[in-house]
Amino acid sequence: MGGDNAPAAIVEGARRAVDELGLKVVLVGRRDELGDVGDLEVLEASQVIAMDADAASSVRTMKDSSLVRAAEAVRDGRAGAMVSAGNTGATMASALLRMGRLSKVARPAIATPIPVPGSPAPTVLLDAGANAECKPEWLVQFAQMGAVFAARRYGVTAPRVGLLSIGEEPSKGTPLVKEAHELLQDSDLGAARFVGNVEGRDLMGGEVDVVVTDGFTGNVALKTLEGGMKTLIGAILAAFDRDDTTRAAAEALMPALLPLYGTLDPDATGGAMLLGVKGVCVISHGSSSATAIVNALAVAQRSVTDGLVDAVGAAVTTGRA
Amino acid sequence: MGGDNAPAAIVEGARRAVDELGLKVVLVGRRDELGDVGDLEVLEASQVIAMDADAASSVRTMKDSSLVRAAEAVRDGRAGAMVSAGNTGATMASALLRMGRLSKVARPAIATPIPVPGSPAPTVLLDAGANAECKPEWLVQFAQMGAVFAARRYGVTAPRVGLLSIGEEPSKGTPLVKEAHELLQDSDLGAARFVGNVEGRDLMGGEVDVVVTDGFTGNVALKTLEGGMKTLIGAILAAFDRDDTTRAAAEALMPALLPLYGTLDPDATGGAMLLGVKGVCVISHGSSSATAIVNALAVAQRSVTDGLVDAVGAAVTTGRA
Repeated sequence: MGGDNAPAAIVEGARRAVDELGLKVVLVGRRDELGDVGDLEVLEASQVIAMDADAASSVRTMKDSSLVRAAEAVRDGRAGAMVSAGNTGATMASALLRMGRLSKVARPAIATPIPVPGSPAPTVLLDAGANAECKPEWLVQFAQMGAVFAARRYGVTAPRVGLLSIGEEPSKGTPLVKEAHELLQDSDLGAARFVGNVEGRDLMGGEVDVVVTDGFTGNVALKTLEGGMKTLIGAILAAFDRDDTTRAAAEALMPALLPLYGTLDPDATGGAMLLGVKGVCVISHGSSSATAIVNALAVAQRSVTDGLVDAVGAAVTTGRA
Repeated sequence: MGGDNAPAAIVEGARRAVDELGLKVVLVGRRDELGDVGDLEVLEASQVIAMDADAASSVRTMKDSSLVRAAEAVRDGRAGAMVSAGNTGATMASALLRMGRLSKVARPAIATPIPVPGSPAPTVLLDAGANAECKPEWLVQFAQMGAVFAARRYGVTAPRVGLLSIGEEPSKGTPLVKEAHELLQDSDLGAARFVGNVEGRDLMGGEVDVVVTDGFTGNVALKTLEGGMKTLIGAILAAFDRDDTTRAAAEALMPALLPLYGTLDPDATGGAMLLGVKGVCVISHGSSSATAIVNALAVAQRSVTDGLVDAVGAAVTTGRA
């Protein structure tokens, strides 16, 4: 029920995932608003948490909402994973409250892949918005969870983990960053290694695989990047469309530009993932198209097959802070 | 003496500013390392604070450094403004310690213009890195100073001031942001008005003229944007250069793309400015070319003529926090 193009694009994506990839998909929502669902199973849920509704109170009070019911389906084993393009906060809260946290995890975090042109693997940024305020110990757990995610989902065998700051020197940044820096130097990151502080410009630079930060900074960085890319690409496309000459030239350039477009297309990434809960929860962009949903469902299914949740649970070695 | 291309590009820029714009420029540094300075006056300074040196201790101990001497020249009335492409922290500390703060200003802030394609005025982001940690009251002063800056430097008659957060709702964000939101609603911003929370994607969107945030978040956002732009433009230029066909097509597109290039060229902005000190202090990019220095000097001179410092001082109405 959630997302700017819901339910049509969501249903279409689900049907395509069944037809094209052979996935089993259960739709959760108001059956009579879903249109033609084909052979798909529908798990009825009478309520819809609006895109701009307050997350915590909505999840508490709307027990028959599609988000809460989807999270319960994962909890109860009726589904292996949930995918939503709806209210991010409510998706997160539903997953957290219904699936629960992994035992040693202090706070789940949103891991968002940031595309790196020319690189097969994106940079994984977390926390991209789940926790506006963080303790240093949580950032260590984000590093542990993010490293597993980079390894399992993108095949990065020895992930380089960076701490987002405003200078490479350990002395730069807020008290949170300075303390997290010290803790990260002494932490067990499994096959991953801590490469020190990184800066905003490193997010798309390809020199680091996982970047950890608090959810406020991470969300600002992510939206700044999205907005900047959108503005720049929009301005370039407007220039391409200026007159017949530029349109012809742009046409000739398209084959060379297509790989870049493929890398940057948000619909291609499969969405962000909430790490640290007892189940797979894929958070798709609100603007998700049917193709984005197909990719998100594929990622969800692969995460279940790969045992991502157990691997994340095993990687988090520090106690709750 | 400071900047990746110093001193050659700095001296060349200074000489061009004299020749092309009729400005009076005093060079500060080691005379025998400056090369041919033409008719320019040189204020001798024997020490150089390295680009990566610790700012506070360097400024304290290197009393004959070019940065400290430049700030003293402004303090003593030998110069109307200082411009540096050197160590940002040391530039800031020199200006702060030698010129001093304006009387009601709790903390000076770095105001950085962020280009907005298609708009004559950029978005002014502050603090872009002077204060990693901030109090809510300081953000109100940043708003007051930034509004004056947007009005004086870019002719924005009624600046729209936004508070950087992770959602438009006043309830979103850190305690700092929530408290600053309340304070900003009740503050005297002169001809400017507070438009509420904005997000990272609004920095280049053209819907807001001034964006206030703490120096950590501001610096991360700025570097994220710079890095993203650089990566994307690099990838596009690589695609343009793929083969003879794409090179010819790119050539045909250049006239349409040039205005965008002009808007985004960091050398064209004239640099960032430290607001809240008793003098004009322009902070140029470390990578500044001679052209960047010409533009920075022009901005510095205009800021003096326009009485920017007095206007900033008059706009800050709240007491020190």
